[in-house]
Amino acid sequence: MTYTRTLACLRCAASYADPSLELVGRGCPACEADGVPANVLPVYDLAGLSAVPVSGGEPGLFRYRALLPLAAGTPAVSLAEGATPVVDLPAVAERLGVASVVVKDETRNPTWSYKDRLASVAVTKAVELGIDTVVVASTGNHGAAIAAYAARAGLRCVVLTVASVPSTMKTLMQAYGASVVALPEPRQRWSLMRELVEKFGWLAMSGHADPPVGSNPYGVDGYKTIAYELADQLDAPPDVVVVPAAYADGLVGVARGFADLVELGVLERSPRMVAAEPFGPHAAALASGSEVAGPVPYQPSVAFSTASPVGTFQGLSALRSTGGAAVAVPSDEVILAAQRELAASAGLYQEAASATAWPALAALDLDPSASVVVIGTSTGLKDVGATAATLPEVPVIEPAVDALLAAIGS
Amino acid sequence: MTYTRTLACLRCAASYADPSLELVGRGCPACEADGVPANVLPVYDLAGLSAVPVSGGEPGLFRYRALLPLAAGTPAVSLAEGATPVVDLPAVAERLGVASVVVKDETRNPTWSYKDRLASVAVTKAVELGIDTVVVASTGNHGAAIAAYAARAGLRCVVLTVASVPSTMKTLMQAYGASVVALPEPRQRWSLMRELVEKFGWLAMSGHADPPVGSNPYGVDGYKTIAYELADQLDAPPDVVVVPAAYADGLVGVARGFADLVELGVLERSPRMVAAEPFGPHAAALASGSEVAGPVPYQPSVAFSTASPVGTFQGLSALRSTGGAAVAVPSDEVILAAQRELAASAGLYQEAASATAWPALAALDLDPSASVVVIGTSTGLKDVGATAATLPEVPVIEPAVDALLAAIGS
Repeated sequence: MTYTRTLACLRCAASYADPSLELVGRGCPACEADGVPANVLPVYDLAGLSAVPVSGGEPGLFRYRALLPLAAGTPAVSLAEGATPVVDLPAVAERLGVASVVVKDETRNPTWSYKDRLASVAVTKAVELGIDTVVVASTGNHGAAIAAYAARAGLRCVVLTVASVPSTMKTLMQAYGASVVALPEPRQRWSLMRELVEKFGWLAMSGHADPPVGSNPYGVDGYKTIAYELADQLDAPPDVVVVPAAYADGLVGVARGFADLVELGVLERSPRMVAAEPFGPHAAALASGSEVAGPVPYQPSVAFSTASPVGTFQGLSALRSTGGAAVAVPSDEVILAAQRELAASAGLYQEAASATAWPALAALDLDPSASVVVIGTSTGLKDVGATAATLPEVPVIEPAVDALLAAIGS
Repeated sequence: MTYTRTLACLRCAASYADPSLELVGRGCPACEADGVPANVLPVYDLAGLSAVPVSGGEPGLFRYRALLPLAAGTPAVSLAEGATPVVDLPAVAERLGVASVVVKDETRNPTWSYKDRLASVAVTKAVELGIDTVVVASTGNHGAAIAAYAARAGLRCVVLTVASVPSTMKTLMQAYGASVVALPEPRQRWSLMRELVEKFGWLAMSGHADPPVGSNPYGVDGYKTIAYELADQLDAPPDVVVVPAAYADGLVGVARGFADLVELGVLERSPRMVAAEPFGPHAAALASGSEVAGPVPYQPSVAFSTASPVGTFQGLSALRSTGGAAVAVPSDEVILAAQRELAASAGLYQEAASATAWPALAALDLDPSASVVVIGTSTGLKDVGATAATLPEVPVIEPAVDALLAAIGS
């Protein structure tokens, strides 16, 4: 017995029996009434365990299913997600003056972002609950991941997006067979989603509270597996984990995974969680002591996947409980320079939102002994146009050595 | 002792000492003079081995370095490539009337294509040989992979491409810091590359023979690791392995890996290798008994990564020695329908060239007991525009349930 089949509010600790479908994406009604919407997340009983149980026969991240919020016997909806590698960046560590920096390369997932960890668990839960349609509000990675897993499970998927999303993202979501529609204003998606959930019993794969609480609680715990994998992969436990964040589902899930490892006695302490965010709603709330993250001023950002003026209580909670930090990285120029620098020096091409992690990391005051993990959340291929705008045209040359040398400046 | 430090011609068996840099990308001079250019590939001595040796401390596919053409002590240039998962497609198997169909999902590599297996070994070899500049003629995946690994190794990378390559591919190659130039005609790249290799001692990461022989011989053997992994991953050895092919480097490497497994006694026999190709140069040569594959008629193709009117002697050799087949899939419509079908039914979004595997597979006469592996060579994200052209515009709707239901046809 590990998953208790209850959800608990992160803020007031009120407990709810699973399933409480009306709370999925909405959070705790009591805290909502209190003006501080907060997510409800699964509760586990780890008594008697001293390691992360591994289910050998299960695919992808379902090898950790004992610590996922699923009923025994629910068939895994898997595309062999997870088990992503870490890539060591010794030159970056040297420049930052820390012991080590590694990237957990989550672009190596089925839809090339870490949202597959959320999607695999959330869609499996939908199957467990006998749901026929899943609905998600997304600017891309989240929607693509849900669409892919819904396709794998044979469920209908409806994606509510916004017109400004890059065309690559729209195509990707449609390619997986999802019904994709755009709404004029981002926040309109949430009220529409709530209505669809209440009226038709569709399952929310992302949040629909306003201000937001975070995503589908089952999906959030899919990210716990990043921590379990890191504990196996790294020689020493990390001191700092940097995660690009909007509503901080990924950051929260990773922190929860590390908390499990501490509770199990596998690790002595949790790493400091660091949120990299374009506009800094979590950073502002940490500075002011607020329970509500944002809204802060914002503008269009090349880091569209995380470009939110608001954060979440769950994000603040994970940052505060780990002694963490949040760093705003508002400049498109800085973000794209970080993206190019990592690709051209280390061979890793990350989406702009993912690349915010590097300037955020550089802004921290780190101990020379620190070992750092950066979560590389998604591939640069998701919005190649942003990169292309910073690069020269490819020249067409005559087929001659001199012409080539001139073109490459050699 | 496994790698003998010799290269042998696939056709006349002439042996050459490693390094013979002038043969890399050119092949055997004797067979070239004979009018049938043929690649020279590494020779191993497997005597005394009864399994694939695994080097535990090595990153990525270098865990198999005992069967790679590298000197002991050469530091691996790795981005944690390989170890890609297999995804089971029971519905496809049922429709085709075979025992099983799995995808070896090579989109899960560092640059999201199987070319990373070639690039990691070829660039490591460049480091071993003290080369400062690598040069590659590529329409995208190959060039991107080489550029990423060159970045990781700190080598200069020059990519010769053509103007018609999708912009995503150009951006990707540039993002990794490569110097990318386009030539007016594809074949002009080969003569220019040969000149650069001869004049400056740059190492060829792809072929420059005309007609082609295939790629860098060291890189070709990077693909052997796909076979080694499959032998570990599958319950039963595969009967048929389908590989999208142009000059058939991947297909040849995989076949060579299976041949190793047979020689080692791990497998009883090699699977039948099947080439999926837009225009069918290998198919035509198999039918006519020729040693030269193409040229066959061609036109622009959505499967630009494999859209070649010519194949290679190495490809024909692997197909003939395994009792294999080659299937031409010339229709853009058929290819894009296969791409959409796999994404929307199974959650796997492959590049168009990769999607040629599915119509090719459907055209085969397969035994009901057959277990089939399809190599998913690259992600659909490499040319999203081709998919987008087949999809409806994302509608912008009013935030109302009725508007949503109308938009999704429900």
